[in-house]
Amino acid sequence: MIIHSSSQLLTLQGGPQRGADLGKLGIIEDGAVVIRDEKIVAVGKTADIRAAYPHDPTLDAGGCVVMPGFVDPHTHLIWGGDRAAEFELKMAGTPYLDILAAGGGILSTVRATRTSSIESLVAQARPRLLRMFSHGTTTVEAKTGYGLQTATELRLLKALLTLEDENRVDLAITFMGAHAIAPEYKDNPQGYTDLVCDTMLTIVRQWWELHAPNQSLPFVDVFCEHKAFDLAQSRQILSKAKELGFPLKIHADEFDNLGGVQLAVELGAASADHLVKTSDADIEAIGRSDTVAVSLPCTPFGLAECQYTPAKKIIAANGILALATDCNPGTTWNESMQFVIALACRAMKLTPAQAIAASTINSAHAIRRSDRVGSLEIGKQADILILSVPNYRHLGYRYGTNLVKQVVKRGRVYSVDVGYYRTA
Amino acid sequence: MIIHSSSQLLTLQGGPQRGADLGKLGIIEDGAVVIRDEKIVAVGKTADIRAAYPHDPTLDAGGCVVMPGFVDPHTHLIWGGDRAAEFELKMAGTPYLDILAAGGGILSTVRATRTSSIESLVAQARPRLLRMFSHGTTTVEAKTGYGLQTATELRLLKALLTLEDENRVDLAITFMGAHAIAPEYKDNPQGYTDLVCDTMLTIVRQWWELHAPNQSLPFVDVFCEHKAFDLAQSRQILSKAKELGFPLKIHADEFDNLGGVQLAVELGAASADHLVKTSDADIEAIGRSDTVAVSLPCTPFGLAECQYTPAKKIIAANGILALATDCNPGTTWNESMQFVIALACRAMKLTPAQAIAASTINSAHAIRRSDRVGSLEIGKQADILILSVPNYRHLGYRYGTNLVKQVVKRGRVYSVDVGYYRTA
Repeated sequence: MIIHSSSQLLTLQGGPQRGADLGKLGIIEDGAVVIRDEKIVAVGKTADIRAAYPHDPTLDAGGCVVMPGFVDPHTHLIWGGDRAAEFELKMAGTPYLDILAAGGGILSTVRATRTSSIESLVAQARPRLLRMFSHGTTTVEAKTGYGLQTATELRLLKALLTLEDENRVDLAITFMGAHAIAPEYKDNPQGYTDLVCDTMLTIVRQWWELHAPNQSLPFVDVFCEHKAFDLAQSRQILSKAKELGFPLKIHADEFDNLGGVQLAVELGAASADHLVKTSDADIEAIGRSDTVAVSLPCTPFGLAECQYTPAKKIIAANGILALATDCNPGTTWNESMQFVIALACRAMKLTPAQAIAASTINSAHAIRRSDRVGSLEIGKQADILILSVPNYRHLGYRYGTNLVKQVVKRGRVYSVDVGYYRTA
Repeated sequence: MIIHSSSQLLTLQGGPQRGADLGKLGIIEDGAVVIRDEKIVAVGKTADIRAAYPHDPTLDAGGCVVMPGFVDPHTHLIWGGDRAAEFELKMAGTPYLDILAAGGGILSTVRATRTSSIESLVAQARPRLLRMFSHGTTTVEAKTGYGLQTATELRLLKALLTLEDENRVDLAITFMGAHAIAPEYKDNPQGYTDLVCDTMLTIVRQWWELHAPNQSLPFVDVFCEHKAFDLAQSRQILSKAKELGFPLKIHADEFDNLGGVQLAVELGAASADHLVKTSDADIEAIGRSDTVAVSLPCTPFGLAECQYTPAKKIIAANGILALATDCNPGTTWNESMQFVIALACRAMKLTPAQAIAASTINSAHAIRRSDRVGSLEIGKQADILILSVPNYRHLGYRYGTNLVKQVVKRGRVYSVDVGYYRTA
């Protein structure tokens, strides 16, 4: 199949974009892409492509922009329960301690998740995943971390593998037993750290080999913050994970700087995520590394806070910047990478082009899949968006609605821009 | 037809909500609404309704929230041209004066609008209007104001009447010849003010009687700001409009406080809109009046500014607060009232319930239609939303995507929550 556009085809070719290179969209005006067996086999000017592939069926995208599917490299896709009432309390000015006393906060999600079956967890997460898909996300990182006990964490892994098997969106799965201190270990965080290190990681490794023998190991991630895991505990968990062969990620500097970024760089983590209270020394360190700086602007937005990732500094330090939704029930329930792009432009002064690269090829690198997805290049998976906009700048400029018209996933075309139709 | 929900039916009954009354949703758990001839003829508990109307077909909304359609009381729906490149320049840090020198700013929209035919203006505005509709807005205020010369302003009125005739979304039309100083009068703002007053208003009145004889007169609106119309000029225009029988609106205090709010109150305007740099004295004045305070949080958000309408003060002063998108090509291109609600919660600390009331019954009052739309009450137009959420708090809590499943407009049902479907 040939997909061609009389407007812009954004290839994002050339691999992850570091520092000042961020924003090179590789635009082909009047360009086309050829798909065979779920993969891209040619990219070029429409006239050349049609001459070279005269018998392929064509999908004419008209004046719409064609680009790679979004890669969302940081989500907490799977949880049980409903925290909308907690949001209402927060907006009404209820102090956070009162919300916790009323049974709110992350541990309310942990309680609801622990009492949910795999089937129920899958049923709750599926609409979120499909909403991501209909907004153009074709690969999603998804973490466990609302179990905080071995059995539930494994149930979450199983639920994520089930969603992956449904074969719509590719998942990059992350084990995050170290998302918070389990309530049973409230007064003994070191005890919970030891449990994650000495028991959970080994069990997850064995479990994974049994349940997903053909997939590479999931990421292991730690929430390195006050009241969660301190730097020594984060190092303990990530070092052990590395020893066991897991690739690494870290949540760092969302509220406080404990040194998580430099730990991530030292251990060769694929990414360090959040990065709000990040120091200049940390930025220099990540700028010299292959660890991707994943900014999650929806988190401060969701919390009505005003401080964002120092994205321009990261770019100036030659870092690899990526964007993600952080979709989760406590701080930000938004599935759309398009909104992340629009917010990143305004809150961190990225240009639309920079935000697009940070949401495709660079975010693919944050989950170490930039060899497979994130750009329109020969050999890559045919994950492609057709946007109902005349040029790429409308991503960022416009916001709050879905600009995706069609999503192509592994060469299959799905229409999403139905708008509405009369039914009665 | 009966529409019923096992979850929440929000009636918003009882008229515009002033001050501390804001946020009374009139929730009926397991409620139903009966529609006959485009209107609501009964509202109540599902069991009672089904007993009273045993032969009506039913639409079972399941566990979805049912509520009135959104009323968006402030948009610049109709314009020509594309300003996405200007947005990119702004995000890249280009000074505004350089953007103006490069041909950007509102006058670039005026140029493109002046050279567009009625057909082209309608074709450009229609997708915006339908996007509003698919996001649950069933009544939209829409202004002229990118013509700034009599002939183009009349063409914009004609284009809006054409869109209204397509009969999907109800429009409340506003004449805003005084949106900016026309470029021909750059050095003579008083000359342009006199043109609006002495020529345009009279012509618009005659034109309207000829082209829309069965409709009440449109609103007349003025942009009361530095570099636009000062207080005396705003008074001159609005007083003349009032004399001619037009209902009034004003843009006030977006960037500077020139006294527009008190002028609106004095002249009995239906609403005063923006209200960012509004003083305590102004808030007191509007709080004692029937002029609705329309907040447009997407405007500072779109411009990446941090100051918003002092909404809590307006509520404390017993004012009638409403919300709107302000959808326009220069500062904020977002069609979704759902996003306005989510932003209003975070930026102005409204609760979801307050933001919902400000987007339905109160925004209906801002265009003086709270007798016809904005609530589910007997005799009102059957403009109804079915949302794919389990309780009303998800509006506000979640953002960035469309939570509307079905829109009922004058009793006709349209499905919008199609998600996606495979087409090839």
